[in-house]
Amino acid sequence: MAVLKKEEMQFELQKSVEILERTPLILEAYLGRLSKDWLKNNEGENTWSPYEILGHLVYGEKTDWMVRVKTILRTSGNKLFEPFDRLAQLKEDQDRPIAELLTDFNVLRTSNLEELRALNISDEDLQLTGIHPEFGEVTLGQLIATWVVHDLGHIGQISRVMAKQYKNEVGPWINYLSVLKR
Amino acid sequence: MAVLKKEEMQFELQKSVEILERTPLILEAYLGRLSKDWLKNNEGENTWSPYEILGHLVYGEKTDWMVRVKTILRTSGNKLFEPFDRLAQLKEDQDRPIAELLTDFNVLRTSNLEELRALNISDEDLQLTGIHPEFGEVTLGQLIATWVVHDLGHIGQISRVMAKQYKNEVGPWINYLSVLKR
Repeated sequence: MAVLKKEEMQFELQKSVEILERTPLILEAYLGRLSKDWLKNNEGENTWSPYEILGHLVYGEKTDWMVRVKTILRTSGNKLFEPFDRLAQLKEDQDRPIAELLTDFNVLRTSNLEELRALNISDEDLQLTGIHPEFGEVTLGQLIATWVVHDLGHIGQISRVMAKQYKNEVGPWINYLSVLKR
Repeated sequence: MAVLKKEEMQFELQKSVEILERTPLILEAYLGRLSKDWLKNNEGENTWSPYEILGHLVYGEKTDWMVRVKTILRTSGNKLFEPFDRLAQLKEDQDRPIAELLTDFNVLRTSNLEELRALNISDEDLQLTGIHPEFGEVTLGQLIATWVVHDLGHIGQISRVMAKQYKNEVGPWINYLSVLKR
C-alpha cells in the first residue's frame, strides 16, 4: 500500500529514444484539430501558447539537438555549441495550420532519430563532451537526457497553459487543482 | 512579436468535450507500450507513478464525474456528492498490463461522453447545483470545467514524474529545466 520511493532511472540511450520517438504522437493527439482558443491562448504576457510551444520544439529539431550531438561526436574542430534561439518560433508565420507544424515536427524528429541510431553511439561515446556557451563542458549523455526532459517539460507546459484557460470556471475546486497555481 | 495576454476562455460545453474526448488518445500515445521504469517510478514517498495516475483517472470515470453530473441533474432527492476516494487505485491489482488500463479508460470515457451528450445539457442546466462534501454548492458548469482541468493536470503530472527520472542525468542543464524543480 505504501508508495515507496523508487530509485531514479539511470541514463540509457534506448530508454531515451523510447520517449523521443513518442513525442510526435503525443503532440498529434494533444494538438491535432484543436480549436483556436485552446491552441492560441497563453498564460499572460511573455508566455507561450501551445501553438508557440510546438513552434519552439520544431525549431529545436532543426537547429539544436542533433547539431549538438554531431558537434560532440566530430573528431576534430570546434566543440563549442551555437547558442539556441529560444524565441525563434515567435518570428515565424503564426498563421500556419497546426497540422503543418505537427507534420514538420514528426518528419524532423523521425529523421533526427534515424540519424541518431545510425551513429551507433557507444557507452564510451556518451562520455564525450562539447562546450555549452553558458555553462561549459557537457557530455553527450547529458545532452540526450536533456533532450528527453525538454520534451517532457514542454508537454507539461502545454497541459498547464490549457488548464489555466479554465481558471475562472472551476469555482471552489480551484484550491484542489495544483496545476492552476503554478 | 510581443506575446500579449489573451483573455482566458469562458466555459463552453463543446470546448470541454473537445478536451475530454482526446485524453484517452493522449494517454495511449504517452503510456502505451512504455517500459516498466518509466511507468512505475514515482517522485518519492507518497507520490504516484504514471501507472497509478492512470489508475486514478480510470477510477474517476467509474465513480466520480458522471455520477456527480447525474446527481446535479436529477429533479428530486439528495444533491450531496459522495466523497471521491483519491487513493482507490492503490488498492487495485498493480500488475495489470498498462494496455488493459488504457483500454478501460478509453471505454469508460467514451461511454461517459456518450451519456453526457445524450443529456442534451442546456445553458440553464449548467447553472444547476450539487453539494460538494467539503466546500458546498457547485454548479454543473464548474463540475465539467473541473473534469477538464483535472485531465490536463494529470497529463502534466505524468510529464513531471517522468522528467524527474532523469534529474541526475542532465548535468548543468538542471538549472534550465523548470520541470525538474517542482
